[in-house]
Amino acid sequence: MHINTNRARNFCEKLFAAYGFSTEESAVISDVLLRADLYGIESHGIHRLSRYHDEISSAQVDVKAKPQIVHETPVSATLDANKAMGQLAGVQAMKIAIEKAKISGCGLVTVRNSNHYGIASYYTEMACSQNLIGISMTNTEAICVPTFGAQAMTGTNAIALAMPAEPYFFSYDASTTVVPRGKLEVFKKNSQPLPDHWALDINGKPCTDAANVIDNIIAKAGGGIAPLGGMGTIHGGHKGYGLSIIVDIFTAVLSSGLTSNYVNRKIDHTGICHYFMAVDYGIFGGKDIIKNNLSKFLQELRDSKKAEGHSRIYTHGERAQEMMAQRINGQIPVNDKTLDEIKMITQKLRISDDEFENLIMN
Amino acid sequence: MHINTNRARNFCEKLFAAYGFSTEESAVISDVLLRADLYGIESHGIHRLSRYHDEISSAQVDVKAKPQIVHETPVSATLDANKAMGQLAGVQAMKIAIEKAKISGCGLVTVRNSNHYGIASYYTEMACSQNLIGISMTNTEAICVPTFGAQAMTGTNAIALAMPAEPYFFSYDASTTVVPRGKLEVFKKNSQPLPDHWALDINGKPCTDAANVIDNIIAKAGGGIAPLGGMGTIHGGHKGYGLSIIVDIFTAVLSSGLTSNYVNRKIDHTGICHYFMAVDYGIFGGKDIIKNNLSKFLQELRDSKKAEGHSRIYTHGERAQEMMAQRINGQIPVNDKTLDEIKMITQKLRISDDEFENLIMN
Repeated sequence: MHINTNRARNFCEKLFAAYGFSTEESAVISDVLLRADLYGIESHGIHRLSRYHDEISSAQVDVKAKPQIVHETPVSATLDANKAMGQLAGVQAMKIAIEKAKISGCGLVTVRNSNHYGIASYYTEMACSQNLIGISMTNTEAICVPTFGAQAMTGTNAIALAMPAEPYFFSYDASTTVVPRGKLEVFKKNSQPLPDHWALDINGKPCTDAANVIDNIIAKAGGGIAPLGGMGTIHGGHKGYGLSIIVDIFTAVLSSGLTSNYVNRKIDHTGICHYFMAVDYGIFGGKDIIKNNLSKFLQELRDSKKAEGHSRIYTHGERAQEMMAQRINGQIPVNDKTLDEIKMITQKLRISDDEFENLIMN
Repeated sequence: MHINTNRARNFCEKLFAAYGFSTEESAVISDVLLRADLYGIESHGIHRLSRYHDEISSAQVDVKAKPQIVHETPVSATLDANKAMGQLAGVQAMKIAIEKAKISGCGLVTVRNSNHYGIASYYTEMACSQNLIGISMTNTEAICVPTFGAQAMTGTNAIALAMPAEPYFFSYDASTTVVPRGKLEVFKKNSQPLPDHWALDINGKPCTDAANVIDNIIAKAGGGIAPLGGMGTIHGGHKGYGLSIIVDIFTAVLSSGLTSNYVNRKIDHTGICHYFMAVDYGIFGGKDIIKNNLSKFLQELRDSKKAEGHSRIYTHGERAQEMMAQRINGQIPVNDKTLDEIKMITQKLRISDDEFENLIMN
């Protein structure tokens, strides 16, 4: 099933306003959410509304919270999000990083006591759209098992970087685990065995039973997902493990917040931390020359020789940008379960049935 | 065979002085080289003397070059290394980054037209030893094949980050390929088949024949090593591919230098580019609190539950620091082939035989 993009936006804005967010805040949260659907990253789009509903209902998210600057220099800031929606803390923090980059050349902002902030590339692309380099990272609940370990200690811990280029800007946004949790859920739903090296049981042994791994993650019983590079060191798993630590350094350690292994351990507080950086790349030389160099390099990558059986080499962000061009004035896909969840939320919030009917109208 | 660490240092300093480097320059280059041996990273230590000899002899390295600042702001600098030894350009660039970090909070320095600079962690740890965060990256000759590609387009492209902590500072230093080229050479030497997912033939198909892959790399015939995460996307190879692009952005694109696919294409110019960053983490809050948070988190990782069959979980840099403590006032290992190469270099440089005999004396 597909729904009209503009109607989805209007609906989301009304939904968040019903929780008590201001009109402006509701527009920001909805824009971050819908960007994921426009990019084809359904796991982070309106599919997630029911999880946000739970987080707001359980007071993990404080609807009235205002993130505050607790430390600041001309090139940096530390924010306490005070349990705000991650999207609101994120947009505010990246705006500060961008302002500092425009004045000082770069801005580094770390955020503690926040919540899930959606896709990291939303924030990096805020900087990119202003002709800057944008970087963002976020920690999450521990799900990733250290090399030689048996217990999840770091999160999905995404790293994102965007930089202007033509015809596609470069936009990298990826977890430091071999796969995110959502992928395991797809395998569980289809009762398929997981590929080797993706996940570990509670004894740190390879495990291909998706349901078992997910149950253990939820129960915090042990095991979890392997870092990028897989289990052990043979395929470089220690590198992914190290990258996940680096994300916790920038997000949690520098903000004096909670590292992944303490995130989501309380019923009324997730403690998620983020990092944002903007760099005016003109601090290194002529911006046109530098941007052209990147455009040329990315084109050379796309034009390089293809493997047998493949007709296209992508650079990061290219596919999302193509998908968004199709969907922005059209429709986004939504599955039946998500629609059922949205309908239930609508009822709980006492939003008129007409709004829901309007959303799914063709 | 093992050689005395202090004698190795004296010998290296004399060797580099014989090429025409100043006493101070020879000490810097030798210190970077020996650090690799002290850390147990033999591939980047005195084992590499013969390659440096070839690079100096072929004028890829200009012994008299002085790296110059070509663009500068209070938080940044761009250096043209003018074909200097990578170690000299690297130490000079990281010193600039550190100075800027001490004044402005952070310093970002990008370097073009350099050469192989040894282990990236040498530079990050310069910052770390001054109670700063250090970051470094370097591109190299293309050896890594993009996801869905059949032609090496990016280099080993290492990322390194160091930050103070007790009892072991954190020091990550890893290529963005599944393995570095040196690992393939070990499998070739032992006539062992490569693990799946490590390397590709000239058609972009999986290849376990190390000799074949290395020959193709040398002949620039196609194929190469898979990015971290392996071939295709199933294990996240597109993530490693993206990280290797990010390294080329910071090193080559921002410095207006050569991206990996142009490195080492001329007989008298490698064109290798580097990136250095220092951050005074006091720009985010109390340094003691932040450092203690990192020490605590790293300890929690080391103390977390071990996988069956493993008794220890490491954090990055721990093993190298332990090894250096053993070797600094003792000996470093060296293989026969390296010793033969060193002897030949000594003769070519007309260094007295006594110096070589003194080096290997027990």
